[in-house]
Amino acid sequence: MQADSAVRMAELMFAALREASLDPPGVSRASYGPGERAAHAIARAAAEEIGLEVETDPIGTLSMTLPGMNRELPPVVIGSHLDAVPHGGNYDGAAGVVMGLALAARLRRAGPVLPRDLVILGIRAEEMCWFPMPYLGSRAAFGLLPPDAPDTLRRTDSGRTLAEHMAEEGFDPDFIRQGRASLDPRFVHAFIEPHIEQGPALVEAGLPAAIVTGIRGSLRYRACKATGAWAHAGAVPRQGRRDAVLAVASLAHALEEFWRVAESGGRDLVLTMGEFWTDPAMHGPTRIPGQVTFSLDIRSEDPAVLQAAEALLRDQAARIEAERGVTIDYGPPLPVPPAPMDARLRAALARGAEAAGVPVMAMASGAGHDCLTFAGLGVPGAMLFIRNEHGSHNPEEAMAMADFAAALEVLAAAIGEIAA
Amino acid sequence: MQADSAVRMAELMFAALREASLDPPGVSRASYGPGERAAHAIARAAAEEIGLEVETDPIGTLSMTLPGMNRELPPVVIGSHLDAVPHGGNYDGAAGVVMGLALAARLRRAGPVLPRDLVILGIRAEEMCWFPMPYLGSRAAFGLLPPDAPDTLRRTDSGRTLAEHMAEEGFDPDFIRQGRASLDPRFVHAFIEPHIEQGPALVEAGLPAAIVTGIRGSLRYRACKATGAWAHAGAVPRQGRRDAVLAVASLAHALEEFWRVAESGGRDLVLTMGEFWTDPAMHGPTRIPGQVTFSLDIRSEDPAVLQAAEALLRDQAARIEAERGVTIDYGPPLPVPPAPMDARLRAALARGAEAAGVPVMAMASGAGHDCLTFAGLGVPGAMLFIRNEHGSHNPEEAMAMADFAAALEVLAAAIGEIAA
Repeated sequence: MQADSAVRMAELMFAALREASLDPPGVSRASYGPGERAAHAIARAAAEEIGLEVETDPIGTLSMTLPGMNRELPPVVIGSHLDAVPHGGNYDGAAGVVMGLALAARLRRAGPVLPRDLVILGIRAEEMCWFPMPYLGSRAAFGLLPPDAPDTLRRTDSGRTLAEHMAEEGFDPDFIRQGRASLDPRFVHAFIEPHIEQGPALVEAGLPAAIVTGIRGSLRYRACKATGAWAHAGAVPRQGRRDAVLAVASLAHALEEFWRVAESGGRDLVLTMGEFWTDPAMHGPTRIPGQVTFSLDIRSEDPAVLQAAEALLRDQAARIEAERGVTIDYGPPLPVPPAPMDARLRAALARGAEAAGVPVMAMASGAGHDCLTFAGLGVPGAMLFIRNEHGSHNPEEAMAMADFAAALEVLAAAIGEIAA
Repeated sequence: MQADSAVRMAELMFAALREASLDPPGVSRASYGPGERAAHAIARAAAEEIGLEVETDPIGTLSMTLPGMNRELPPVVIGSHLDAVPHGGNYDGAAGVVMGLALAARLRRAGPVLPRDLVILGIRAEEMCWFPMPYLGSRAAFGLLPPDAPDTLRRTDSGRTLAEHMAEEGFDPDFIRQGRASLDPRFVHAFIEPHIEQGPALVEAGLPAAIVTGIRGSLRYRACKATGAWAHAGAVPRQGRRDAVLAVASLAHALEEFWRVAESGGRDLVLTMGEFWTDPAMHGPTRIPGQVTFSLDIRSEDPAVLQAAEALLRDQAARIEAERGVTIDYGPPLPVPPAPMDARLRAALARGAEAAGVPVMAMASGAGHDCLTFAGLGVPGAMLFIRNEHGSHNPEEAMAMADFAAALEVLAAAIGEIAA
């Protein structure tokens, strides 16, 4: 009955979170704003009721600690973020914190006492839609932000600075300005981030949970330009044209071929041309398009695949310029290296799943997460994905409590080995 | 010296036209507006000086007649339009009327007297940028417009109706409302439209003029929609995606292959996807694009090629829906059948070129012209293209008078056979 009461507590927490941040359709929890504040208050109240040691650092990161046998040892940390996109779903981020608390509640009541502390972490400001800085909250806690970040980053909805919003919530922007840190990578034994899956893989596989193999790195170009020549659609023969739409379509075709080959070779890859537009002030149905603006987002767990993609982009630009007289300027890339998840932690979770009798699969995480910040600093990291319908970042996001309970069983069965 | 004086007259006319419709950069001659009015006045003055019979019909079409031996016979008509796009070039349209007048001046002074009348026609309102109706002026002269056209068509710059603009210029919208006609296809022996080339073919070939083989027909879809599903760029594997950009890129690739095959088989074809855009309110670099809007403009002299293109579009939509889960709705097509130019007239022009020692080539016209209205009614039609740099519909349009003179020589050498 211990498990049931922890799951019941989680269910009540999700209801309270939804209630406190309702913004139909869906919920809104702005980074350093009222929705996030309410979510932190709900987590803190639950932690106090469980009997955890609760602390908030100067930037608002919430630590909720279940003491272990040896308090000098680096703790196991379980956590995720408590902000959410506008009109988003109730589970993205929050599920990780709630699951940590559910596990702590269960351990508190029934044991075992772990050999080291277990810290549940409520992280701030992960969603980039609020402040244009990836993993702002976890990077700030590790002292990784540039010192001018509080004064140069502005929240997209209000236009006001991070410093203003932090101060309004009672936190201290000087902590960032002075490069201070509340987390030390050497003093984290392991970081586990439970998170709803944001794609359809678990729904399609009919499984409640997945153990993440790694977080995909990415090669992102926000505003590529293909420049040919505007001309009359009827009067110019094929050889005389410098058609930017057909040029970018041919690039897309080449990238898709590359994707097919990578996939058939078992290499991880996803690829998106999310924006593609001819200028409405210039284009027309009877005008050969002289310019196209487009974006590219290429992700893989495998750094060699990202390198090969970068080389392909260079080759294609040269080919397209030679064959079509259209130049392609990708602009500066935003490269993020892949983060493989820790092999020992993955094995422990797999053994936990087996012991708990919960069927799981292995999969890559396509999206970035706070776990990337920890892994990037050499902290052993792992993620546990929970089945979720309709993707995330939208009000239709739907995680079943039965799947949450199954994932909790996996974690509970593995925590002894993880904390050893 | 006859030829030189006709070319000199033409040069002065072009200077007067430019002066009267200057609107930097370039010239503007709105249909049923001040620039077109000035151009008609310049043509009328030149015709009177040459000694032609001048008439204006109730909708403003200017007929300038050089009498022939038998005035009962259907005349040879040479003409084009005198309106021009905003900030366009000085020669598009006007060159055809000026060349007709230069020929008439030369025949008037030096003979021969033709067996039938030669009518130089200054047509109204050809440029669709003013009123959204193709070949408005020539179709109105033949009584082909719908009776409500004067009251439903509005000029794009002023928002006022065709009727208002016609009345303001002293013309009679009732002529159109009552379905009357000033031209009768049975009473036109041949229609010749000299026109600057709007593409680069003559510049590239190094030739002063071309004899048009036919005016391409077209299959045009103004606003096609490809609909897939918006989703997270990182989290959805290839098989689960319904990416509208990659779907339309794959359509573009298939169309380009079709084009290559047609071209290598010697079939006439040009193809343009002039507009291609993801919705800025929805798209983003990390979002799989769920919808694309695009246009298609497919042109050929060969109706079989247009039919094959239409079948290909259907097949591709079915393939893309099956393979990618993206539906493509092309919307209603705007089909315009191709108009082959008259073989006898083409042969006469070719013999004229040979006799005059002017090197010419044969080529298709990609753009539509007033000649399409005549050819569509069964009038034998032909077009003579004059070399022109930088395309048309822009201020950089550049026709050399030497090329105009060469084309005039071709026409002068052919007119006897054409009028026979």
